[in-house]
Amino acid sequence: MSNKRDTSRDGFKNKLQTFALTNFSGVWKLLQSNDSLKRKINKTLINNAIYAVPTRPYPFSLMTMEPGFSGNYTCWDSLTDRTYTGRHLPPDPAFNQDDNLPKLEDLAVLFRKKDGQTIYSEKSTQLFPYWVQWFTDGFLRTDHTNKLKNTSNHHIDLSPVYGLNRKSTDMLRAHQGGKLKSQIINGEEYPPFFYANPEKGEIKAEFDGLYTPLNDETRLDPAKKAKLFAMGVERANVQIGYVMLNVLCLREHNRLCDLLAKHYSDWDDERLFQTARNILILLIMKIIVEEYINHITPYHFDFIVDPAAFTNEKWYRQNWMTLEFSLVYRWHSALPETLNYNGEQISMAETLWNNQMLIDRGLAALFEETCSQPGARIGLFNTAEFLIHTELASIELGRKAQLASYNDYREMCQFPRVTDFDQITANPDAQRELKRLYGDVDKIEFYVGLYAEDVRENSALSPLIGRLVGIDAFSQALTNPLMAENIFNEQTFSPIGWEVIQNTNTLSDLVHRNIPQTDKKYTVTFYRNH
Amino acid sequence: MSNKRDTSRDGFKNKLQTFALTNFSGVWKLLQSNDSLKRKINKTLINNAIYAVPTRPYPFSLMTMEPGFSGNYTCWDSLTDRTYTGRHLPPDPAFNQDDNLPKLEDLAVLFRKKDGQTIYSEKSTQLFPYWVQWFTDGFLRTDHTNKLKNTSNHHIDLSPVYGLNRKSTDMLRAHQGGKLKSQIINGEEYPPFFYANPEKGEIKAEFDGLYTPLNDETRLDPAKKAKLFAMGVERANVQIGYVMLNVLCLREHNRLCDLLAKHYSDWDDERLFQTARNILILLIMKIIVEEYINHITPYHFDFIVDPAAFTNEKWYRQNWMTLEFSLVYRWHSALPETLNYNGEQISMAETLWNNQMLIDRGLAALFEETCSQPGARIGLFNTAEFLIHTELASIELGRKAQLASYNDYREMCQFPRVTDFDQITANPDAQRELKRLYGDVDKIEFYVGLYAEDVRENSALSPLIGRLVGIDAFSQALTNPLMAENIFNEQTFSPIGWEVIQNTNTLSDLVHRNIPQTDKKYTVTFYRNH
Repeated sequence: MSNKRDTSRDGFKNKLQTFALTNFSGVWKLLQSNDSLKRKINKTLINNAIYAVPTRPYPFSLMTMEPGFSGNYTCWDSLTDRTYTGRHLPPDPAFNQDDNLPKLEDLAVLFRKKDGQTIYSEKSTQLFPYWVQWFTDGFLRTDHTNKLKNTSNHHIDLSPVYGLNRKSTDMLRAHQGGKLKSQIINGEEYPPFFYANPEKGEIKAEFDGLYTPLNDETRLDPAKKAKLFAMGVERANVQIGYVMLNVLCLREHNRLCDLLAKHYSDWDDERLFQTARNILILLIMKIIVEEYINHITPYHFDFIVDPAAFTNEKWYRQNWMTLEFSLVYRWHSALPETLNYNGEQISMAETLWNNQMLIDRGLAALFEETCSQPGARIGLFNTAEFLIHTELASIELGRKAQLASYNDYREMCQFPRVTDFDQITANPDAQRELKRLYGDVDKIEFYVGLYAEDVRENSALSPLIGRLVGIDAFSQALTNPLMAENIFNEQTFSPIGWEVIQNTNTLSDLVHRNIPQTDKKYTVTFYRNH
Repeated sequence: MSNKRDTSRDGFKNKLQTFALTNFSGVWKLLQSNDSLKRKINKTLINNAIYAVPTRPYPFSLMTMEPGFSGNYTCWDSLTDRTYTGRHLPPDPAFNQDDNLPKLEDLAVLFRKKDGQTIYSEKSTQLFPYWVQWFTDGFLRTDHTNKLKNTSNHHIDLSPVYGLNRKSTDMLRAHQGGKLKSQIINGEEYPPFFYANPEKGEIKAEFDGLYTPLNDETRLDPAKKAKLFAMGVERANVQIGYVMLNVLCLREHNRLCDLLAKHYSDWDDERLFQTARNILILLIMKIIVEEYINHITPYHFDFIVDPAAFTNEKWYRQNWMTLEFSLVYRWHSALPETLNYNGEQISMAETLWNNQMLIDRGLAALFEETCSQPGARIGLFNTAEFLIHTELASIELGRKAQLASYNDYREMCQFPRVTDFDQITANPDAQRELKRLYGDVDKIEFYVGLYAEDVRENSALSPLIGRLVGIDAFSQALTNPLMAENIFNEQTFSPIGWEVIQNTNTLSDLVHRNIPQTDKKYTVTFYRNH
């Protein structure tokens, strides 16, 4: 065991690229000052990220894991039926034989905190895990009646805000002025409440069929139920961070409607709604690429939204969310066990299904408070106790899907296979536990390997997570139809909408125009050291 | 009125291209003898064809024609919901105002035969309209409960053979040896019959829910019902030509299963079925591009299936069948009113829902007989009486969708707008009737203009139909997932399947290996003068 990581298997090309991109900040600054050069570098780096692996469509989906299929051949349905979740690598039945893998429950030790101590992120505020959970929840949606399937629209379409289908969207719309239904509490705008009679668990008639409440929701006490908002998906009320971002979108949508109505007085409700929605999707997309992705990379280069650059790329294919992408984005460990709320240290569990906490603080104060405290570091030995079973369920799903090994995925991503445990992490405890549980690095499972790798310096992520996130994130975000050649224009978004898109650069911009107006400037950032 | 066509508005570039491709046959032969050059020309010509118009995704679908939408703005659903049919050009409400267009019933005269005379095709046999109806019916599927919508899978997936969804496919499968259910009649293989009790109209329990029978089917007399086959879609029994091609596919599928089982003795039913299906889809795709498309063009160059050439094209986008594509493919006039059946001249209407006619003749004889007689020419004054109402319904749908004018579509396709009626057709009757009905060439509707144009020399199609067919056909066939970079290989189709694909070049190959074996060589061709 060693407490220094052996970097001999990081790969020369990988090391070189990271070195170049994380040094010479002056050079990068200069290069980016030239718009055309900046676009060229942007294109090259994004293409490099995506082309690290073969591109969609892939021959297999989780459909071939259904009983009756032996799993290792392509069929028409596995090529076309996107209700089954996609996958990058074919199933590996030999690797996933029971006697080849540790018992599931024995792996809990890898995620459980040491002496209950949380390891905080050096880079990210608590806004980071909140944001990630919220935005990925819109498209990474396991079907809980059959975990091989999903209920995703496979696009960033803000389903948490607008619902998964037209029927739900209709229920959420005011059908006046293009707006979403809302209510004013303490002078601030929120979605309407969902329950007509919280005691009896009766949902308002207007929201009947909006979604099927989760068991966690049905078990809530009436006081909490009373404050649940009517929003797009069954998980939208799950945690105050999630609700905070959804409420922000609701306000921005309705604000955009007023703005559009002011400029285009002949527009009807439908046109106002549809155009505001399109603008808002683009605003969030811009924040994802230009603020969030730039936060997670350790690079001196800032990615930009420049969809025209990619129309001729062979990765520009119909989206299909993969199981690997879903597992790569389970950053349970990023959520600290406790948080500071209005000056008090409280348990994160208290923030679940608890909208009163948002209402009491208001949007601005809650954003600032969230950004004044650190998120936790993504990795082993750092998962809150109430999420340990979720980590194990993720590993179990990987086994059900017969995922290939951690080392196979490294190879797919053009990282050399590791040959020893100290090439994965410098943490002697992690090395020891991995060795005890798996014996051989080639036996480490994908999910465990992902989170066992050390986070890179000044990054929010480990190398393999970083690479896999980049592949699916870029290749499935930039394919959004709103950014397509004949659609990404002023005509689609309206001249004033187009202007709003150009002039909105950060989440902070979005927050500040959707809170009761004062001169106060709130801090809204993913960065601890801003 | 003139009986010569004024070619001044054909467009110089268009004329030049046609001239080059329809002359110099020796040069074209030489060029095609070099494989690499042939592939380069293939790529260039196909790209030219597709890039004649803007590429998918398009901002609008027929969804925006639903009540409540004013039609002329993009919304998220019109960008994503493929149950609504796509469209190339946005709606044009002004053009489609009632007082701007002739009365629908007045247009019947344009399609009705002059003195009942059929104009035969100089190029195509009757196999041509049979083939076109059969293969396009797999993906151009108007939803008859709402004509703005469709029930298409938007792919060439042989739904007439395999059904539109997994439930239907399961009903059609024998679940043994990978095969489709079948029966032997007169020593030849056919699908099983659909009805348990034709008198009472009772469908066999095993096929309950396979599809909802059309009104035309439910009204049939019991003798005809008794002979209907259980096949993939509600229209599969509609006409003997359609049934003939479906039966051919059934036999080839089951033949492929035997072949695969012989080579891969450990394969189970599922793997045999799925692989045979994938192979058969590719075989039909090959015949579409290399036999059918080469038949419809007047060129000396023969297109080939070479999917690898197109991975970086910006037209390589998710398929979405358009209304224009559907209208461009309504070749009702290609079907003669009468046909020769076993030495007798009979009415085409007799061949509807009449499988006994196929059973009596057998597959080989019916194919040969079909190929020994001409199809009819596509164009005005040539539609069988029983299909006149279908022509008018197509125009009506165009109006409901507020399609732009014929001249607008010419412009979209890079043809100069016509300025006089004699630029469309040399037929004085057609010129006269168009002038009487529309007054102004700018008022001619899309559907009418399509079929009013004269068929080009040695072509099966008019110029605008030819161009529009090329755009959607190439850009939506070559995107089939089975031809994608990581899927179009021996591993997907198996080594023996791959060999079958390489060695099958014509429909004739397919027919001859699926009929009772004799030394006789039957004629199976789209060409009258073979």
